[in-house]
Amino acid sequence: MEDLIIDLLAQVRRQKPLVHNITNLVVMNSTANALLALGASPVMVHSPSEVREVVDLAQSLVLNIGTLSELTAESMLVAAEHANNIGRPWVLDPVGAGISAFRNDLLANLLELKPTVIRGNASEIMSLYNFNQVNTKGVDSTADSKDAIGFGKALQEQLGSTICISGKVDYILSEQHTAEVHNGHPLMTQVTGLGCSATALIGAFLAITDHPFEAATAGVSLLSLAGELATARSSGPGSLQVNLYDELYLLNEERIRMHLNLKLYGN
Amino acid sequence: MEDLIIDLLAQVRRQKPLVHNITNLVVMNSTANALLALGASPVMVHSPSEVREVVDLAQSLVLNIGTLSELTAESMLVAAEHANNIGRPWVLDPVGAGISAFRNDLLANLLELKPTVIRGNASEIMSLYNFNQVNTKGVDSTADSKDAIGFGKALQEQLGSTICISGKVDYILSEQHTAEVHNGHPLMTQVTGLGCSATALIGAFLAITDHPFEAATAGVSLLSLAGELATARSSGPGSLQVNLYDELYLLNEERIRMHLNLKLYGN
Amino acid sequence: MEDLIIDLLAQVRRQKPLVHNITNLVVMNSTANALLALGASPVMVHSPSEVREVVDLAQSLVLNIGTLSELTAESMLVAAEHANNIGRPWVLDPVGAGISAFRNDLLANLLELKPTVIRGNASEIMSLYNFNQVNTKGVDSTADSKDAIGFGKALQEQLGSTICISGKVDYILSEQHTAEVHNGHPLMTQVTGLGCSATALIGAFLAITDHPFEAATAGVSLLSLAGELATARSSGPGSLQVNLYDELYLLNEERIRMHLNLKLYGN
Repeated sequence: MEDLIIDLLAQVRRQKPLVHNITNLVVMNSTANALLALGASPVMVHSPSEVREVVDLAQSLVLNIGTLSELTAESMLVAAEHANNIGRPWVLDPVGAGISAFRNDLLANLLELKPTVIRGNASEIMSLYNFNQVNTKGVDSTADSKDAIGFGKALQEQLGSTICISGKVDYILSEQHTAEVHNGHPLMTQVTGLGCSATALIGAFLAITDHPFEAATAGVSLLSLAGELATARSSGPGSLQVNLYDELYLLNEERIRMHLNLKLYGN
Repeated sequence: MEDLIIDLLAQVRRQKPLVHNITNLVVMNSTANALLALGASPVMVHSPSEVREVVDLAQSLVLNIGTLSELTAESMLVAAEHANNIGRPWVLDPVGAGISAFRNDLLANLLELKPTVIRGNASEIMSLYNFNQVNTKGVDSTADSKDAIGFGKALQEQLGSTICISGKVDYILSEQHTAEVHNGHPLMTQVTGLGCSATALIGAFLAITDHPFEAATAGVSLLSLAGELATARSSGPGSLQVNLYDELYLLNEERIRMHLNLKLYGN
Repeated sequence: MEDLIIDLLAQVRRQKPLVHNITNLVVMNSTANALLALGASPVMVHSPSEVREVVDLAQSLVLNIGTLSELTAESMLVAAEHANNIGRPWVLDPVGAGISAFRNDLLANLLELKPTVIRGNASEIMSLYNFNQVNTKGVDSTADSKDAIGFGKALQEQLGSTICISGKVDYILSEQHTAEVHNGHPLMTQVTGLGCSATALIGAFLAITDHPFEAATAGVSLLSLAGELATARSSGPGSLQVNLYDELYLLNEERIRMHLNLKLYGN
């Protein structure tokens, strides 16, 4: 898997794929910068009047419902449907799943369109599985990622999507495989939008491979790895955010081989 | 007051209160990061379709009118009214008060709902007191914070709200007390959104105490203190913004006792 | 020209002109910070309900169509028309020109209002000249700035606007002069919004001089220069963005004389 991730990263940097983001207003700048630092090319367009044309232009689509509005909800549905029609992969970040009926309704509609990949924290994944049984505390996770594995697997079976659960350990679940990422650092939870950045990186890898599980594992693990390396030279969450972009830019074969802590299981 | 602020900070870090922000697009990322660095848990939701449910979930509400739209104006009124109905404290940041009739109309409606706390610069507080007599220069203050004390006191009497005036010296005015914060640094005016971050921190403290004057004093003074400490190791406004988050994260009893310069008066 | 730029910078810092931005959601925070770091005073207001009043208050207007919506499209037209009526200079950043019919329609309407200055990358300038013949890859340029000079000159003749083309070399084209900026660094393309920041700085200089070519040359060259100086002490795109604000703040006569690499030609 390490060899594969190193190869996928090289491909992103060579191809600079165009990644279309309809994302939340809090993280627009930071996810665009994460994509650029990795080597991809972000385009952030969300008006219903033009999302369809941009789905056509781009190689993948990232949907993040963080700061939802009636307008972006409509855009996301139009974009996801069009992506499916033309065979473009897309990843969903169900930020704050469970906090409102409006949000749950949109998520139900998006799940019907079967995202290629879904990435969220434990509360969000549990909430997606059953909108009525879990209380989410805002956008942070109140549950351990391990607790959500069963929900993630059930969701995987229902939808066929690759499911990623971020937390102390990150889990990536496909029909046939499970990956565990043992990188990252607790200080990363005190910077806004790092989960959203992992989702955006998944989008970058989806753009250059037909294997969603590999794309999801590459995106999740490289964000966690870059965050861990960045934390080691940061004095707090401000410098961590800045150093994270530098570490994404500096990722190379040597650093990945030395520091990536990834476990892969067959199901 | 120092003991109290140290205790309130410990409570925020222990309880990690959920702070609901309907805020401006320029500072969404930076205020979320300021809240996380302090130890609170931000949720940024502004669609009229879901603000009511999020007011229910959160422990306090922050309204910031910086980049107002018809939609967020409606959301703010719905949220503030619902917060009052269920007894949730809220803080208003009247960014750019006085620059347009649309903004002044919304502010008049929000003032009728009697915010728990209002924080602005001198021009904004003067403008709030009398929408017709002061010319505001955009969102920066053209007046000294001292000049606005009389207006702030009159506003305090009219509304019963705690009033904060940011500037070279920060003033916090309640019915019975006045606090003066002599921390901060002029370079802080060359970073966008630090006043907005002070407002967000007030929101964090309102979430864990029933005493608005104490919450406001804690929020304003810790932001100014962190900014002063950050400036001391910054070479310009870029590094200041980054170091500010680190300093909020690093704030502790020792630093507060050594550097906080707060004066408290009875009225 | 060096003397002139040094003088214009001093004027911005002395006058702190109010620069009205209707800009894209990705770069709102970063362009506000770039303007503040330079010494200007940004105001970010985009609701159709109040743009007219803010055009009245401010000394110049910056339009950036990056994350266009129906609402901001309307605001931009209202603001540009009002700016023309009251003789206020304005600069247009045609982000992503060519990626959708909606975007091209708005641009066609804005071009009819004859922007004082237009700044874009090579693809955008070529796309503006002929909406049908160039394929833009998202918001990044796929063409060399040199390739766009002919298109830029034709656009300059059509509209009378000063045209800026960003790239490895930056070109500024007026009826009588051409300037070439040989500063900057390739790493700057891995930070989002630096082109947008150049546009915002042009806005700051338009606010204090009646000579658009001089304003455009000052804005473009100081952003490229600050980016080059920032790159020299950065380990990646994260620290570059932060150091760029510091370098804008630290720009002075000595640094400009030592490092600015500007060539000026008569046409």
